[in-house]
Amino acid sequence: MSSTHAFQPWDVLSSVPLLSAPPWLEISRQEVRLPGGKVLSDFYRVGLPDFTLVVPVVPGGEVVMVRGYKHGLGCVSLGLPGGLLEPGEAPLEGARRELLEETGYTAERWAPLGSFVVDANRHCGTLHAFLALDARPDRPAADDETERLAVCLMDRGTLTRALAAGEVHGLASACALGLGLLRGW
Amino acid sequence: MSSTHAFQPWDVLSSVPLLSAPPWLEISRQEVRLPGGKVLSDFYRVGLPDFTLVVPVVPGGEVVMVRGYKHGLGCVSLGLPGGLLEPGEAPLEGARRELLEETGYTAERWAPLGSFVVDANRHCGTLHAFLALDARPDRPAADDETERLAVCLMDRGTLTRALAAGEVHGLASACALGLGLLRGW
Repeated sequence: MSSTHAFQPWDVLSSVPLLSAPPWLEISRQEVRLPGGKVLSDFYRVGLPDFTLVVPVVPGGEVVMVRGYKHGLGCVSLGLPGGLLEPGEAPLEGARRELLEETGYTAERWAPLGSFVVDANRHCGTLHAFLALDARPDRPAADDETERLAVCLMDRGTLTRALAAGEVHGLASACALGLGLLRGW
Repeated sequence: MSSTHAFQPWDVLSSVPLLSAPPWLEISRQEVRLPGGKVLSDFYRVGLPDFTLVVPVVPGGEVVMVRGYKHGLGCVSLGLPGGLLEPGEAPLEGARRELLEETGYTAERWAPLGSFVVDANRHCGTLHAFLALDARPDRPAADDETERLAVCLMDRGTLTRALAAGEVHGLASACALGLGLLRGW
């Protein structure tokens, strides 16, 4: 096992914009030089919006989950509430907004579960994940035709089994839910 | 909370290829019709390669982790061994190959931890995650200049703390490691 250069950053020699479709997508091709001297001429950078996910836990210990068709997954899937950050919005602020919009719930106590870059090679945006305790229904969920979701409460045992059974198809929801279950409440 | 149409797929009316850079990247813009009739003219589809990650556990219970600079993360990070599937390669086969290449370890007993689509809206490829038990060193890791990694063994307690402390920056590694720790061994 060679760890030579394992901890040295790569140099970006040039970056060519290939596609720009704000706020959805920015693609560029980088020429990079590795620590050992090798040059890669086609290292792609994919810019996608940052987003949040919330593990909202009600006083009885169940988690507020959402279920609906997601076009990237190509199927109906179980997932966590959350969504894209708006311009200038802090992650916690965005998480509170999305929880309320998608489920109608608010929560009293918030704790970060971590921030994670979606793709370790191409970037693809950052997930900010939160645990939200003492979640309670406050108002009807917003009516958003681009994101129809059914809200359901699920206990820890059911969720652990659903995760193991492949009912959570999206990587970000699986990650945040797994981290929430590991942390406990 | 309106669940009307929550479980109905969207219709793809057209798909325009915007950028093709095989095997790394395929971008297209879809026009989609939602179940309620609304049409979105700019729904982007991002195709990225499928990949594997492995939670390799040695007989003593520690996990074989890798640490190195990742250009998409922009920093040195702790992660799991794994990598892109080769053309025609089955996920388990790719996972075995990457574990051996990156760490020099082989493992006796393999169990799937699940397959997850990276982006619930734009797709961005699929992660296939595995738990590999009875992992043992077999040979030196391959010398790959494009991926310099240091191998280390970490116990469950240390890993749980590292995950909570933000030392695992990549979403896919955080997800697979969290699911592995939840599953136990």
